Amino acid sequence: MTKIITISREFGSGGRQIGCQLAERLGIPFYDKELIKMAAEDIEIEEHIFEMYDNAFMEKEEVKYTPFSHTYEASMSDQIFIAQSRVIRRLAHHGPCVIVGRCADMVLKDEQCLNLFFYANFKKRVQRICKLEGLPESEAKLTEKRVREIDQKRRDYYQYYTGNEWGKPQNYHLCLDSHKAGMEACVDAAVAYMAHLG
Amino acid sequence: MTKIITISREFGSGGRQIGCQLAERLGIPFYDKELIKMAAEDIEIEEHIFEMYDNAFMEKEEVKYTPFSHTYEASMSDQIFIAQSRVIRRLAHHGPCVIVGRCADMVLKDEQCLNLFFYANFKKRVQRICKLEGLPESEAKLTEKRVREIDQKRRDYYQYYTGNEWGKPQNYHLCLDSHKAGMEACVDAAVAYMAHLG
Repeated sequence: MTKIITISREFGSGGRQIGCQLAERLGIPFYDKELIKMAAEDIEIEEHIFEMYDNAFMEKEEVKYTPFSHTYEASMSDQIFIAQSRVIRRLAHHGPCVIVGRCADMVLKDEQCLNLFFYANFKKRVQRICKLEGLPESEAKLTEKRVREIDQKRRDYYQYYTGNEWGKPQNYHLCLDSHKAGMEACVDAAVAYMAHLG
Repeated sequence: MTKIITISREFGSGGRQIGCQLAERLGIPFYDKELIKMAAEDIEIEEHIFEMYDNAFMEKEEVKYTPFSHTYEASMSDQIFIAQSRVIRRLAHHGPCVIVGRCADMVLKDEQCLNLFFYANFKKRVQRICKLEGLPESEAKLTEKRVREIDQKRRDYYQYYTGNEWGKPQNYHLCLDSHKAGMEACVDAAVAYMAHLG
């Protein structure tokens, strides 16, 4: 049974939390930001520099060439992506796990993975973030802006590193609305689907 | 429990067949082309004329205005869409059912539906159609062309009548790759997800 699960998700959809519950249900490890730390060890960059550069991409660092072009020396964010990809492959070979973000679906495209994408109604996502962070209603507009921006950054990151369109169903095996039926419904649906994989 | 299920699908993905299995599993009626007949009765157009015009849209009939603009008299294909929508709403009010195609997800957007979208790898869809129709390998290229064209017609039809993008996950509650784990996996996943709906 395929037990490497990759998760992509809209910001605020709860995809990370669903991934965590799915890992728990299956009794397998769950990886997200931990990857950064492992990748940092892997290329021996100090963690705080690593995180700084990782965030730098998120600030729309100017992108001048594709990461696998060998004509130029790879930029720091490209080096980090490559190191993270190496760690992701190592984790996948080590055994079943759930990996959130970092284009893991494409990094592991030659492996037998189950690739999931989670999304939800925009307003519901904003409400969820506000609730989680204890923000007053007056912050709703700012949160809306942040949700849009983070989604856009994820879209750009995915597009840049995979050449594919983030959130296009054909890039995943299951795409699930996490609000309509709730997180447990998503876990159940994914487990039911997986049960048929060889 | 929500038991009105609408199905959209890429041509050759087996979405219709999965819908049929899902209806059987849930013990509820399944509607597809039957809708045309019922709609024909509804507006008292002879069935063969009805079908001819219905196919005419599929031949990219020139589209000059939106179906709900009241400035012009509605075209025949718009009249048919409106009649079908009426039938779809009647079916939904009558009780639980599975409805394939005809923008039923948007026609019933104010109802408690579960909207599913099925897709699969392009080559696998072509192979499935060839196998189903007993076509020789030499017909594969022609079948590829047909699959692309029918998908495009479905995309156009959905765009024209709903103003939304066909196959965009956010328009559905679950999007499922029907090839990866097979049709039964899709039925199981949909049933597992639905079990959580109020």
